[in-house]
Formats: sequence, structure tokens, C-alpha cells
Amino acid sequence: MDVTFLTVLRSLIVGAGPSGLMAAYWMARCGVKARVIDKRSTKVFVGHADGLRPRTLELFDSMGFQHRVMQEGSISTEANFWVPGEGGKLARKGPFNISRPDESPYHNTRLNQGRIERFILDSIKEHSDLEVERGIIAESLEYDENLENDPNSYPITVKLRSQGEEALNPLYNHSQSASGATRKESERHYLLPDDWNDQAQRGNFESKVEIVRAKYLIGCDGAHSWTRKQLDIPVEGSNTDHIWGVIDVIPISDFPDIRRVSIVSNAAGTILIIPRERGLVRFYVPVHVCEAGSTTRFDRSTITPEVIRTRVQAILSPFTFDFQACSWWTVYQVGQRIASKFTKGDRIFLAGDAVHTHSPKMGLGMNMSMQDGFNLGWKVALAVAGTVQPSILMTYDLERHPLAEMLVDFDRHWSPMFIDQKSPEEKDTKAAAMFDIAGKFEDFADGWKVFYPGSCLVCKPGSEAVARYIVPGERLKPVKLRNQAEGGTKWTTTLLESDGRFRILVLAGDVRNPMQRGRLETLCQVLTGQFAPKPSPLDRYVSIAGRHDSPLDVVTVHSVPWKEAEFFDFPEILHPLDAVRGWAYDKIWCDDSCIFDRYCDGTAYEKWGVDWVLGALVVVRPDQYIGWVGELGDVDEMTEYLDAILVKK
Amino acid sequence: MDVTFLTVLRSLIVGAGPSGLMAAYWMARCGVKARVIDKRSTKVFVGHADGLRPRTLELFDSMGFQHRVMQEGSISTEANFWVPGEGGKLARKGPFNISRPDESPYHNTRLNQGRIERFILDSIKEHSDLEVERGIIAESLEYDENLENDPNSYPITVKLRSQGEEALNPLYNHSQSASGATRKESERHYLLPDDWNDQAQRGNFESKVEIVRAKYLIGCDGAHSWTRKQLDIPVEGSNTDHIWGVIDVIPISDFPDIRRVSIVSNAAGTILIIPRERGLVRFYVPVHVCEAGSTTRFDRSTITPEVIRTRVQAILSPFTFDFQACSWWTVYQVGQRIASKFTKGDRIFLAGDAVHTHSPKMGLGMNMSMQDGFNLGWKVALAVAGTVQPSILMTYDLERHPLAEMLVDFDRHWSPMFIDQKSPEEKDTKAAAMFDIAGKFEDFADGWKVFYPGSCLVCKPGSEAVARYIVPGERLKPVKLRNQAEGGTKWTTTLLESDGRFRILVLAGDVRNPMQRGRLETLCQVLTGQFAPKPSPLDRYVSIAGRHDSPLDVVTVHSVPWKEAEFFDFPEILHPLDAVRGWAYDKIWCDDSCIFDRYCDGTAYEKWGVDWVLGALVVVRPDQYIGWVGELGDVDEMTEYLDAILVKK
Repeated sequence: MDVTFLTVLRSLIVGAGPSGLMAAYWMARCGVKARVIDKRSTKVFVGHADGLRPRTLELFDSMGFQHRVMQEGSISTEANFWVPGEGGKLARKGPFNISRPDESPYHNTRLNQGRIERFILDSIKEHSDLEVERGIIAESLEYDENLENDPNSYPITVKLRSQGEEALNPLYNHSQSASGATRKESERHYLLPDDWNDQAQRGNFESKVEIVRAKYLIGCDGAHSWTRKQLDIPVEGSNTDHIWGVIDVIPISDFPDIRRVSIVSNAAGTILIIPRERGLVRFYVPVHVCEAGSTTRFDRSTITPEVIRTRVQAILSPFTFDFQACSWWTVYQVGQRIASKFTKGDRIFLAGDAVHTHSPKMGLGMNMSMQDGFNLGWKVALAVAGTVQPSILMTYDLERHPLAEMLVDFDRHWSPMFIDQKSPEEKDTKAAAMFDIAGKFEDFADGWKVFYPGSCLVCKPGSEAVARYIVPGERLKPVKLRNQAEGGTKWTTTLLESDGRFRILVLAGDVRNPMQRGRLETLCQVLTGQFAPKPSPLDRYVSIAGRHDSPLDVVTVHSVPWKEAEFFDFPEILHPLDAVRGWAYDKIWCDDSCIFDRYCDGTAYEKWGVDWVLGALVVVRPDQYIGWVGELGDVDEMTEYLDAILVKK
Repeated sequence: MDVTFLTVLRSLIVGAGPSGLMAAYWMARCGVKARVIDKRSTKVFVGHADGLRPRTLELFDSMGFQHRVMQEGSISTEANFWVPGEGGKLARKGPFNISRPDESPYHNTRLNQGRIERFILDSIKEHSDLEVERGIIAESLEYDENLENDPNSYPITVKLRSQGEEALNPLYNHSQSASGATRKESERHYLLPDDWNDQAQRGNFESKVEIVRAKYLIGCDGAHSWTRKQLDIPVEGSNTDHIWGVIDVIPISDFPDIRRVSIVSNAAGTILIIPRERGLVRFYVPVHVCEAGSTTRFDRSTITPEVIRTRVQAILSPFTFDFQACSWWTVYQVGQRIASKFTKGDRIFLAGDAVHTHSPKMGLGMNMSMQDGFNLGWKVALAVAGTVQPSILMTYDLERHPLAEMLVDFDRHWSPMFIDQKSPEEKDTKAAAMFDIAGKFEDFADGWKVFYPGSCLVCKPGSEAVARYIVPGERLKPVKLRNQAEGGTKWTTTLLESDGRFRILVLAGDVRNPMQRGRLETLCQVLTGQFAPKPSPLDRYVSIAGRHDSPLDVVTVHSVPWKEAEFFDFPEILHPLDAVRGWAYDKIWCDDSCIFDRYCDGTAYEKWGVDWVLGALVVVRPDQYIGWVGELGDVDEMTEYLDAILVKK
């Protein structure tokens, strides 16, 4: 007989894929006791998603593991388009740049989802005792709407069942080793030692039933989301008529661009070639078109790696193509769907594939899902911690829903381009059309523009006169700065660590100028609380218990040449003294070039559109998006912005 | 009663500090069954050496973990000198650049020895089953000279004893937590999770005696080397009269350069300030001068962190100085000593502190020791593997002994400068003198120049007409190249992976030029073995069993603009086809700039002094030092060079 336990919990995350792990990261960083369950018995190891957009990589940097992604991942900065040329033989159009060199420290990178999960899991472990509980399914969900508005209540009741390993769902739906060997044997070759050990050390699963009562629930349980179904949240959209095969192989091919992002299109069809880490290349291959109006479900078992191989051979001909090593493959039908809402009462939230699905060919899926989890995680974690007001939770749907709509809409235009059977002349026009569409979408796809609308978290309009390119609702454009005390350099993406704190950026300007010096000193007097009865904004809000004394962190960036400024020139509130850690040497930064670092080029103020003398005052949210912008003197306005978000002491 | 085992072993490494681990790395990479023993029960976790020179970091890159050092370490690129100025108050001279921006991808970095040991251990684990056996002492050593010249013999017999944990030497001689708390408690704060787990999981040690017979023995057992003493190898030199204190603390100080490398010198004395990772700063502090001719041993127990604190306070005055957190401290007397030889019969070798000691204040000790182990390790590993002729082992003493002499000689000039008690005016002159001496030494200290003399491994003179700055006996100057097949960029230090293979660099020049194209094709015909009866040099030598089919790896770097060349333009021998891995896409590189990477600037040929059209042919040793240089047509000369090193099939 099953034993039943009762647990009361602050937050529960269902699903430990990329979006669930991003949310879990925030629980770990903010010291929130949470639980993360997943029905599968292990993490992903090979295959699945692989595309990483620059914005996602910037987030990884703020989380502390982007150096691992750079070490292992494969970067492509150009793409090529191949269509029949003279004599009908495939000819290259390109290369086209697919990345903008100065927009981000990072470039489009491919690395399989399993490694990304590894890095987030390692980071969670570094900051907390939180562990993913695997082999657990949620069986029932009750939600008591009457309790919704009582912040101390636990309106969610979930019944969880731990399964014996035998009963677990297989990890890879619709996928298997191409050779037919057992998974363990066939995969070892593709796994790095830390993943291999993880896989080898799977524990025993005992059957157990548990009733969990939770304040918040985050459902990241994929396209067939159990959580979404319990909530009866409708999904709009449909499957397209096209069945695709995906295969990760080490190709043996004389096609010249086999290690470059390429689209190859001729009378035989269109394939997408994506080079990956460790010699792997991924191929997206159209394998079947369902008849319009047909009600028979396509039998996916007719598609094998052999079928995909033959299709690729036909499309790449006269170039050769073959493989012996295949790490993963699958067959899918593109579903373009979006959930009508992403939340139930701002107590239960859905993220990632649970609320939007689309074709994987823009390499955006994992990025959108992780950015959902990242956007949501800190809000729930800080709400649970009592640091922010639960009212900010309404911004999750507000910010992420329109982006998901934009994504699915784009996909409806982009995806069919791979399918059309056109003449060679039309192919040429099509090539241009595809890049045109992709180009327009780039700002969004790479994450440069996010367009978060105005809300309590995004104070719009900002102050264009003060900081032209620091726009509330967008990310802070990354720049490399020089540390005043040490002389070393850092990207702002590293500096603005994702530790749960809001950051007040004091862009101090030219503090050699006496007028400006006076402005800075006035600001610091306010920040120190010297204008009683006005309390210091730094001392005004509830802390992140066990982690940070204040939910606000102050970082100063001045514009004086590095050698002409001194750390102790700056008022102490900007680099406060700690009895054990000493003065905060990591808080004063300089926008100056450094001959030892070609990326530290003294262009921060310019890139941000900020006056070199006058500077600016900026609040950056915990997720590195701009919340508020003003002048150095606008502390009252800033405090007003913060008052609507943070819980006062 | 002790149980005695008998083991026959190819190579035994005594001492698992930085030099021993570097040697062990090569055993792991070359698939050599070896054993590594250490008398201590754990690795180092805090304190000890911390200075990492660029050349060492380049080696780390070739070993695959430099990204971890960059993530954790502290970089300083400027230094300051403080002497009494007007009114006797300390005034800054500086900053002086202490790194050359274009000489290396990496800059002087500080990170404690414990982390470096961690990274090397992790790398060893990734490539082999080799594990360091701790808590084991060597009790006796016998060496049978009669067997010396028989490569199949085991002339070395060592008796090993595993100790119970109780009997182990304490890890930290002359050091302890400043607070007096137990080590575990006091250190947790300073340890990263992977080190903490390592420390927490120490196993049980059972008492056991073992007789090991070995072909080769590498003694890396420190300044008091047991191995050296067994061999009766004399050590020349002496202790200086000065006792120094070293302390790693998180300072609480208003001294402006506390987070910059600084030398502070006034009537109260001279201290060296070295900023470290994670807020730590190291102070080297003179604490006592022994009377000349005195025979009484100085009682080190009189020196405490309190004494050191007071000394620093006196010297930094009127600036404040204090600390609460101290991760490590020690007291030492500089010994400037060098062993008369580094080997016994080229069967037993000594490396690191076992053969040279000097003052730690240039931050060179760990670098010299690791470079010893790195220089020695591949030679022993490949000799054991049967890939190279044992005769090359004579180059270890030949190459490393003169460098150690240079180091100790420099130290005799450098070290006293910290001690002299001079007037303020003299201090000024002294500052200039110190930087002058340091500047001259820099080429050597940073590792730019190594001056390995001519030998079977270093074919001198090279061919200055062909490659002006590719000098046999020096390192290959690092440059960033663009991969032809993928378009991505890599430093040569990453590309020339330390995997045990010699690399033939085919600097193919401008292959658009028909004459040059002809030269390249002729070279490739020779490499393919098409000029029978001359066998291909690539197919001529014994493999590295279980690792590589050939001890030679061919890498091509051409000078044609990236977009004007194609991967398949190059003869197949330069990117051979493997039945599973496909063509070798990582073998053709381009010296062209890349708008996505400011460090990839198309200056490789220029930095190497190689003609853009004609190119050159270069052999790089497994340790990235230049062995041989010639023209593309000089294959016979190259083969002659290789014949003297590698074992023919």
C-alpha cells in the first residue's frame, strides 16, 4: 500500500527542463525553499534543443557559467544558402552574417540542451541544497480561488506520486539510438564525464504518494503540459501539415558548408544544416506532407534514420552524404500553438513549451522557454521571500505573452518557406525572401529588443534626454568596464550578477567637474539618509532573508579616465565598508579603455547614449532589464518606482 | 603485521604538488599506466603559491582548463611603487604596466595553488583512470645502474608505506588558521564546493607496505625532497638571513592600491602587496633579520599573524590596515639553492622545488615547477609508451637546469632589494633599480623566452629567412586563427592541444598562387608517401598506443582571405578522412581577420615573420616549443629531425 505524506511548501516547480531549471535557479539564489519535480528519471543527455541566442548567453553570464558554454559550444557567425545555379547544380549564396559583432559579448552558439541543464543544475547546487526530484508525477491539482488574495495562504493542493523506475516514461519519446544498441552503450561516446556519472548514478525510486500544499506552482511540463490541462487553459493554433525528421550525426560529406549554418533547397526539397559541438551536425529534413483534410494520423514509425539519410542524400546531391555515428534523432510535426493565458490567478504559472510551440528551425525554442523561466523565477522567488509585492506577478503574462504571440506569428511565415516546391528561379527569390524575413526578426530573435510594456516594473517612458539607449523594458546593452580599484575589466553581464537584487546604476559622469561632483554628493547624501525625515532608499525595504541585507545593490560607473580617478574619491555609500569584507572594491567602475583588453574600449556612455559629464541614474531589474531611468537628482522618482515593487520594512 | 605487495610499474611519480601533477597529466594523456603518490592526506586547499605567469596560462589552455582559471583568478596588469614623498608621506609611483598586451592571450593572474591542483586533477580524471594515492610515503630507493641502458629493464626499486591517517604529516607546516579554530570550520568559507567535497570525502587509510619496481621515477617531493636525498645529489646555495611572513587576508584598509600589485617601502621596511581572487590580498612582510654568522636557529613560533599585522600597519602608516578574515599564513626563510643535476641516469628525475628554491616574491615558483613537470612529463610518458627514443630524456636536464640557474641568480639580485634600509632619497633610486631589474627579467619570467639549447629536440639554427620569429627552442608565439570549414576562431594555444603529439605546421602561404600551389601539392605528395621508396613521414613512426595512430598531427594555416579559400581546395592528406569522424574539419586554418573577434586580426604570419606567399614548414613539440623550421620543400630535413626522436615502426 502507498504511504501518503503531507507537505506544505512555498513553491513547487513541475518539470525540470530548461524553463523549469531557470525558475529553480532563482529559488536557489534567493534562498527560497522550493521543490522541483520531473516525471522523467534523468535529465536530458543528448539531442533535443541546441540553439542558444546571444541574449540567453548574456543571462548565463549573469548566472556564472557562460565560460563553460563558450568552452564547449559551437559558434557560427555566417550562414549560407544553397540553390540550384547554372546547369542546375547547387551553388552557394553567401556567406551572410548572422550575428552583429558589437551588439553582445556573445554570438549564436549551439550546444545540446543536456549540457545546459548540467550547467544550471551545477549552479543550483553551488547556491543551495535544492535538488531535482525525478521520477515523480503530479496526479491531481486543486486550486482554491477564495484564498487567492491572501498572501499567507496556500491555495494550491497537488498530489504527487513517486514511481518505481520500471514505471517511468521512457526518456526519449520517438527517438532512439540509430544503431539499435542499448542506450547506455550507444550514448557513452557522446557524453562528457560529468553527465556520464550522473546517468550512471541514478538512484532507486520507491513508490510513494504525497499531498503538497503550495503558495505558488510553476508548470514547465512541456507541450503536453499536465498542469495546463488541469487548469483548462485553452491553446490556440494547430499542427501544420508537415512532418519533419531531425538527426544529429557526424557527417561524412564533401558538401563544402557541412560545418556552417546552411539552408539547401532544390527540387528534391529543403534542408537546414546546423553544425554542433564535438563534430556533430544537425539536419532538419522534411519527410512527409499530410494530405489536406486527411483525418488519418501519420504513422511516424515509417520514418527511420535510413529514411532521413536518403532524403538528405537526395537534396545534397551531387555532393556526397553519409554517417556512421548518430547521437540522436526524432520525428515531429510542427504545432504552432499558444495558450490563451500564462497564469491562473497569479498563483499558478505556465512557462516554455507548456504555453507556446512552434517550429524549432529558428533555434529559438529553448531560448524562449528559458527566458520565460528566467522572467518568472525571480518574481515568484522574491514574492515568496517577502521582498517584492505579489502584485508584480501580473507582469509575467503581460511581458511574456505578447512575445510568444510574436514568435508563433513569425513562425507561421518562416516555417512554410522550407516546404514550398518551387522552380529554380523561384528558389532564388525565396532565398532573398527568407533572409529578409529572418533579418527583420533578428532583433527579437537574438534578444536585443524585448519590448516589455509599461507596468509597475517598467516605468515608461524613460528619460530619452538623459540616457538615449537605456530604454525601460529593454535589456541593458552590455559593455565592458574597468574596475577602479583593481584595473581589471568585466562585461556588465557578469557584473550585474543574477543574485535577486535590483541594481541602482549610478552613472556618475565626470566627477572632476565641481558641479557634477556636487550633484553626486547630494545624491549620496540622500542615499545615506542624511535628509531626515526621508529615509534612505537603501535602508527602506525588506531584505532577501539569509542572502542580502538589502534588495538593492548600488553600482557606480564614472566617465573619468581610469588613471585620473581614485577609488576613495567616491562617497562611501557607493562602496560601503563591511566589518569583515572591507570596502566594496567591486562597486566602482570606469568607462575607459584598457590596452590589455580590446573589448574594453571606453564606449559605454556612448553606447548607452549618456552624457559624459552629467551621467544618469538607472534601476536595473534582477533580470537585467531596465526598470527606471532618470537624472542623478531624481531620487524621489526612483523611490516612488521602487515603492510600488518592494515591500517596505 | 604489515602486508607487503610487489608491483611492477612503468613510471612512479613521488609528490602530487603542481610539478608532479603536470607530469601526471602527461601520463593520463598518453595512456601510460603510472602511479602518483603523495605523503599528505589531501591536496592543498588554501594559501601556498598563487602567481601564474602568462606562459603557464598558455599551457593550461593547451590542457583544456584555462577558462576555469580566467573565471576564478584575479588579473593585474599594472603595478605601483609607494615610497615616502613630500613631507615623508607615502606617495605612489606608477602605475607601471607589468604585462605586454600583445604578447600572449593571457595576463599575470593570481589564483591559489589549491585551485590549480583541482583543475589538473579534474583534467587527469577526464582522460584516464589515474588517481593520486595520498597518505603514502616512500621509505627506500634502490637504483641498479647496470640496468640503466636496457630500455626494457626496471632499474628502480622503491618501498612504499601507506599510513593510517593519524600518522600523516599535517598538511600545513608552519601555518594554521589565524583564529585558532579547527581547520575544517575555519576553511569552509574559503573553499569552493568542489574542493570542500574533496576535503570532506577523505577516505580511510590502511597501513600497507608495497615494493614497487619501476622503469622511471619522477621526484616532485618539494624543497626537502626525499628522492633527492636518496640519490645524494648535492644542493648548492644557502639560506638568506631574512625571515619573511606571508599572510592571505581580506584587508580592511584605506590604502588606495590595496587591490593592485604594490611594493610599499619606507623607513619601517618594505612589503609586497598582491591582490588575489575572492577579495583576498597576500602580503609579503619581512619580519626578522638573522645576525650574520649566528648559528642559533630562529624560533619561528615567535611570529604570529598578530606580528605580521603590526608590521604591515607600521609600513602602510598613515594609511589604516587591519583584517578579520585570514585564510592562510606562514613564515619562511628564503633559501636560494639549486641541485647540481636534475637526473640520475635519465631514469630518475627531479622537478620543481626538489631542485630549485628561491624567494616567492616574483610569483615564479609554481610556474617554474609546473613547467619542469610539463617539460619532463611528455618525454617520460612517450618514452614509456615506446613512441620516442629514450635518448631524448637527456634534454630535461639540458633544458631546465640553466633556467633554474638563471632564476636563482636573478633572485639573488631581486630579493635583497626588499630588505635594504635606505633613506627616502635612496628609496627612489631603488624603485627605479627594482623595476629596471624586473623589466630585464620579464621576458624570462613571463615565459616569452625560454632559450632551450640545441639538442635532438631543438634543431638550431632554425631558418631565419623562412620564419624570422619562429625560433627553435622558443615557444610558438600565440596567434588567433580562423577555422576554414566553420569560420570560428581559436588561439593556437587551444589548437595545439597537449595530447602528446608532435605537430607539423604547414604554413601553406598563398595557395591561390600557382607556383605556391605546386609547392604545397609536392609537399602533400611526399606526406602521402607517393614518392616510393620514400615512406610517408606520417606513417613511419610507432603510434601512441590506444590514443593516436600517429605521433604526428598535421595542422595547416594558410594566408588566403577566408572567403576566398575552400576547405576542399586543400589536399586530403591535410584533412584526412576517417570512416566515423568524416573529414578533419579542425585541421585547416586561416590567417585572416574576423569581424566577430577582435583578437583574430590576421596578423599570424606577420607575428611569426613568415612570408605570406611562401609560407613555411614547422615542427612544434608536444609542449608547444619549436623543434624544427624549414621551407615547404624541406621534408627530408624534417624527417631527419623526427628520425632522431621518434621510434620507427
